[in-house]
Amino acid sequence: MSIITVLGAGAMGSALCTPLIDSGWEVRLWGTWLDDHLLDAVEAGKPHPRTNEPLAQGVKLYRSGELSDALDGANVVVMSVASVGVEKVTELALDGIEKAEALWLTSKGFNEGPDGNIQLLPDAIRRIAKANGKTIPPIVAIAGPVKANECAARKPTATIFGSKDKDLATRFAREARSDVYCIEPSGDETGVEICAPMKNVYAIALGIADGLEEGTGVPHHNLKAATFAQAVREMSLLGQSQGADPATAFGLAGVGDLEVTGLSGRNKVYGVRLGRGETAKEALAEMDRLEQTVEGVPAAGLAVGFVKQHAPNLVDELPLLAAVSRIISGAVTDVKAEVAAAVLPKRP
Amino acid sequence: MSIITVLGAGAMGSALCTPLIDSGWEVRLWGTWLDDHLLDAVEAGKPHPRTNEPLAQGVKLYRSGELSDALDGANVVVMSVASVGVEKVTELALDGIEKAEALWLTSKGFNEGPDGNIQLLPDAIRRIAKANGKTIPPIVAIAGPVKANECAARKPTATIFGSKDKDLATRFAREARSDVYCIEPSGDETGVEICAPMKNVYAIALGIADGLEEGTGVPHHNLKAATFAQAVREMSLLGQSQGADPATAFGLAGVGDLEVTGLSGRNKVYGVRLGRGETAKEALAEMDRLEQTVEGVPAAGLAVGFVKQHAPNLVDELPLLAAVSRIISGAVTDVKAEVAAAVLPKRP
Repeated sequence: MSIITVLGAGAMGSALCTPLIDSGWEVRLWGTWLDDHLLDAVEAGKPHPRTNEPLAQGVKLYRSGELSDALDGANVVVMSVASVGVEKVTELALDGIEKAEALWLTSKGFNEGPDGNIQLLPDAIRRIAKANGKTIPPIVAIAGPVKANECAARKPTATIFGSKDKDLATRFAREARSDVYCIEPSGDETGVEICAPMKNVYAIALGIADGLEEGTGVPHHNLKAATFAQAVREMSLLGQSQGADPATAFGLAGVGDLEVTGLSGRNKVYGVRLGRGETAKEALAEMDRLEQTVEGVPAAGLAVGFVKQHAPNLVDELPLLAAVSRIISGAVTDVKAEVAAAVLPKRP
Repeated sequence: MSIITVLGAGAMGSALCTPLIDSGWEVRLWGTWLDDHLLDAVEAGKPHPRTNEPLAQGVKLYRSGELSDALDGANVVVMSVASVGVEKVTELALDGIEKAEALWLTSKGFNEGPDGNIQLLPDAIRRIAKANGKTIPPIVAIAGPVKANECAARKPTATIFGSKDKDLATRFAREARSDVYCIEPSGDETGVEICAPMKNVYAIALGIADGLEEGTGVPHHNLKAATFAQAVREMSLLGQSQGADPATAFGLAGVGDLEVTGLSGRNKVYGVRLGRGETAKEALAEMDRLEQTVEGVPAAGLAVGFVKQHAPNLVDELPLLAAVSRIISGAVTDVKAEVAAAVLPKRP
């Protein structure tokens, strides 16, 4: 039986344990120093506080101080911590990661290095390893339309495993598949990784259209749909600029994940607040008060920086990213006009 | 001032009058023999019964008996009747259409000819003209995520004009654009026309996922998102098989229109009923009782026939179309399993 160690016991890390157990892995779940209360609840027989679902039976739990035990002999390591924790946890886990056959990655986001260089997470992880004299095995980027609670509850789920080594992605897509957790293998690590944080940014814009309806009582479905199409277009363009297959954005990682993220979730809820008329500052303060992290907010700033550094010729080709970034900054008074100008076709 | 005659005074025909008036056309709206009550309401100063919005000021109304007056001197004719009426209205209007510079088309669907050949509407219209010794000017297929009521109410709207003559599409995209009705020109008449009816079919499947949530109290967002991605994939494949640009399905006509159609509308509502557990027969009977035409139902059957006739190598490559078709036929007891099997990635 292959051993897989999931780093991070939050919603996605714990949810992923369900199909891994179902597909026959020996599953170890390691909680960071922020996850003690989550593991406490699970050990007390309660549902996982982030998914409201019980943890899959048979998962072995490890506390933050037991990292080397958790990694000992692991065939695969899964990085599942929040993107802000990826750097630290990578450094702590480097020995175990280096010995594994692969590093799977469900963390999503951009990483800003000490020199200000903004990178996709796989590149950041490889950079951190190199700086520590280590190498990273092939990375498998996991994305697609997966709400953690549904994954944990064995609801039908499609996901994508993207690796530069397509054969490896295919092997794992076979080995981690359950009856309901179904994996499309892809050779496009970059495309998958671009879509993952960008869809959080664009979900804010989709939320704005919903908020306009809530605020005015008048639907703005046409604007929302145009926003959706423009978001997909921008994810594809940005991916292409980084050597990704432009089609990745048109599949599960882009269109699919944007659909589920734009339908619900915190980024969308934050956008709804903006659309209803709250200022960017008020909306974020209220989300903070509710302890609702809005991943799309830092992601938007990092994405703008990423584009400037790595795709400068696209700076004027991603108007929706620019609009969301301006709205978040508080510089926009008429959010409807700002989004409309970004997504409606120009006069030809 | 150019004269444009809109044939069909239903929701979309009447809604389109708003941007046409705003962009400076002389607009004539002709109602079929089924539209008298709609024109009665408008003439009485009431909102249009199908959009709940007033008709744009300055539109000249014509009753079914006044077709030749309505068409006299028209620079452009717009076909905006329900797809079942296209054949009849085309025959009646052939003289006027032949004299126009272009025929615009907002009607959506497939047409089954007397010999059983199933065609996209532009091809059917050209066939009908030819059989009557007439020729049709360039056709401009109008599609994209446009809810008629929002278009009539001057809400921000993006649409696509697809014509084999891209320059002509571009010219009209300029000439019919208002501040809020914004048009992307395209050279892909076929791609636009494929997406238009197919999105109604796939919206039924999206509704099923919503209905599963309503029926069980448990969200099926992951399944819905996977369904969305598979629908887009199938629209692109089918388009490609007919010589369309596969990218058309990834833009406003496909992704965009599916978003708005899957979000609301009758096809989605019918799907919700199926997902909640009503039989196909019960669900359709209830929609009939509410006088809610479900366009996706006949479209699914015609689409299956179209694929057999014109894309036989795709018969096994469009599992979601096949699943919706089987579900509609009443042959499926477990709609969730049927949709899941169609949209979840196979074991690689």
